[in-house]
Amino acid sequence: MTALDTLLLWLDIAGIAVFAASGALVASRKQMDAVGFILIAAVTAFGGGTLRDVLLGRVPPFWLRDPAWLAVASSVAVLVFFTAHRVESRFRALLWADAVGLALFAVLGAEIALLAGAKPWAAVLLGVATATFGGAARDVICNEIPLLLRKEIYALAALAGAAVFVALRVNGVWRDPALLAGMAVAFGIRAIAILRGWSLPAYKPRPGRDYPN
Amino acid sequence: MTALDTLLLWLDIAGIAVFAASGALVASRKQMDAVGFILIAAVTAFGGGTLRDVLLGRVPPFWLRDPAWLAVASSVAVLVFFTAHRVESRFRALLWADAVGLALFAVLGAEIALLAGAKPWAAVLLGVATATFGGAARDVICNEIPLLLRKEIYALAALAGAAVFVALRVNGVWRDPALLAGMAVAFGIRAIAILRGWSLPAYKPRPGRDYPN
Amino acid sequence: MTALDTLLLWLDIAGIAVFAASGALVASRKQMDAVGFILIAAVTAFGGGTLRDVLLGRVPPFWLRDPAWLAVASSVAVLVFFTAHRVESRFRALLWADAVGLALFAVLGAEIALLAGAKPWAAVLLGVATATFGGAARDVICNEIPLLLRKEIYALAALAGAAVFVALRVNGVWRDPALLAGMAVAFGIRAIAILRGWSLPAYKPRPGRDYPN
Repeated sequence: MTALDTLLLWLDIAGIAVFAASGALVASRKQMDAVGFILIAAVTAFGGGTLRDVLLGRVPPFWLRDPAWLAVASSVAVLVFFTAHRVESRFRALLWADAVGLALFAVLGAEIALLAGAKPWAAVLLGVATATFGGAARDVICNEIPLLLRKEIYALAALAGAAVFVALRVNGVWRDPALLAGMAVAFGIRAIAILRGWSLPAYKPRPGRDYPN
Repeated sequence: MTALDTLLLWLDIAGIAVFAASGALVASRKQMDAVGFILIAAVTAFGGGTLRDVLLGRVPPFWLRDPAWLAVASSVAVLVFFTAHRVESRFRALLWADAVGLALFAVLGAEIALLAGAKPWAAVLLGVATATFGGAARDVICNEIPLLLRKEIYALAALAGAAVFVALRVNGVWRDPALLAGMAVAFGIRAIAILRGWSLPAYKPRPGRDYPN
Repeated sequence: MTALDTLLLWLDIAGIAVFAASGALVASRKQMDAVGFILIAAVTAFGGGTLRDVLLGRVPPFWLRDPAWLAVASSVAVLVFFTAHRVESRFRALLWADAVGLALFAVLGAEIALLAGAKPWAAVLLGVATATFGGAARDVICNEIPLLLRKEIYALAALAGAAVFVALRVNGVWRDPALLAGMAVAFGIRAIAILRGWSLPAYKPRPGRDYPN
């Protein structure tokens, strides 16, 4: 294994770990038990990659090919179970863990799609899907308002990161600088959005009323 | 490309466009930003066909094989973003866009399933899945009460349209009259259900109480 | 067909039937019409097996290969539609139907995964996914609090049953005693959890506040 592959492996592990942490933090908000922590951590960490793998025809998906991924996600979930009460604001911790995962998976998902032969534009879309699906599933199952739907820039950060990575790769830049540049762009945009409340102009006129009956 | 294929292509485009519009209209009810409009439009327009393609083993699904579909869905989403405030009742517009999409996709989904070698009864089911899954995903992600669960006839319209189409095809009717007949049946039933509030007899005795704790 | 295969077939049918019943009981709580009963029954009964089949690359999934499964699920749904008002507590009936389905599908899902060549640990995970996904989809679509997230032991029962079954099989125990032992363990744990309110220690400190805006 070369130094480059080692970097990629560690980025992958980091992505699984931070998304697992974000899932476990939502589980703590819902006062679930340790099994629930592991389950929601796994759904969040594996959801996006599973969608990507199924859409690319790569089955069984990655977490069924190597037990290490489950070990990482459940260790993180158990760790959060025992330590979350020490976190000053679990909601902010959740936001940041999710932001790191979003940046890593947008780029890593696009990379895997490119390697599987997807066209550049399709690789960008699969990167966005990899980055956003796990968190959306976490929020829908736990009945939270999906981060996707909140006001601050979210999906756009994943899109920008994946697009930068793919554009660099297609134009001959080496993998590692391209990976790091894409992740930096995605995380940077999302981080500023969280810190400054940056948002895109939203549709304003009037909210929808409840469904008539 | 023959005249028949041209018809099919236009029907496909129309289905993507109206479902994208219905998704964008839900996004406007939730006051999302333009990226959110595109995302929900894409989930609604691509969701049913993605489920169908994955269940048939046709991966990558249609929207990853040709960028035109994404172009259609995002153009419609952006158009709705800038014009939805002019719509008198966005909820009624949403209902009608969804009804057109339901009718088109029920029949087109069944057609693709038949071409992929599915048995007639399975093709009808896949038509219903194609027609209903995108809208259900839209409503679940956006935390709206799914149209599927509302009182008026909904899934039954898709079922009737798909069944009429498949029955005509299996009995030797040419594709285009069969397509149009199936769509007319599905749209007709759904339209009357919306206009007249038609519904099937519902289970009455008493609603469920909240989960005890 | 040997006596052993017959047992397996009946267990499969029983699993589809009880999960269909649990779906129909949720539909009755929501006062849906008969088509809605069938739809929710089918999502609950077919959801877990569909996820398992897609993840294993076994497409089309089981319910598109044989119309008998749809016949079972819709018959049960219609039966519940006409008889649910006679049930003293539909919520308790739903809990028990779900518990039986959970036990059957955890073990049957793991068995199918083993037969498809999955490693033992992966087969256990696929058993848990088969057992829990249909019920989770039912609850998310119907906007109920997922049983997965309630206090009593739920996913752990499926995990224990699948693990016992796989451990026995891997160690050379015949299929039928292993099936029955796994199901007994899963159902036993879940039954005691329902009857005695057994739960694992939950994360306590404080519930999450609503998302800040």
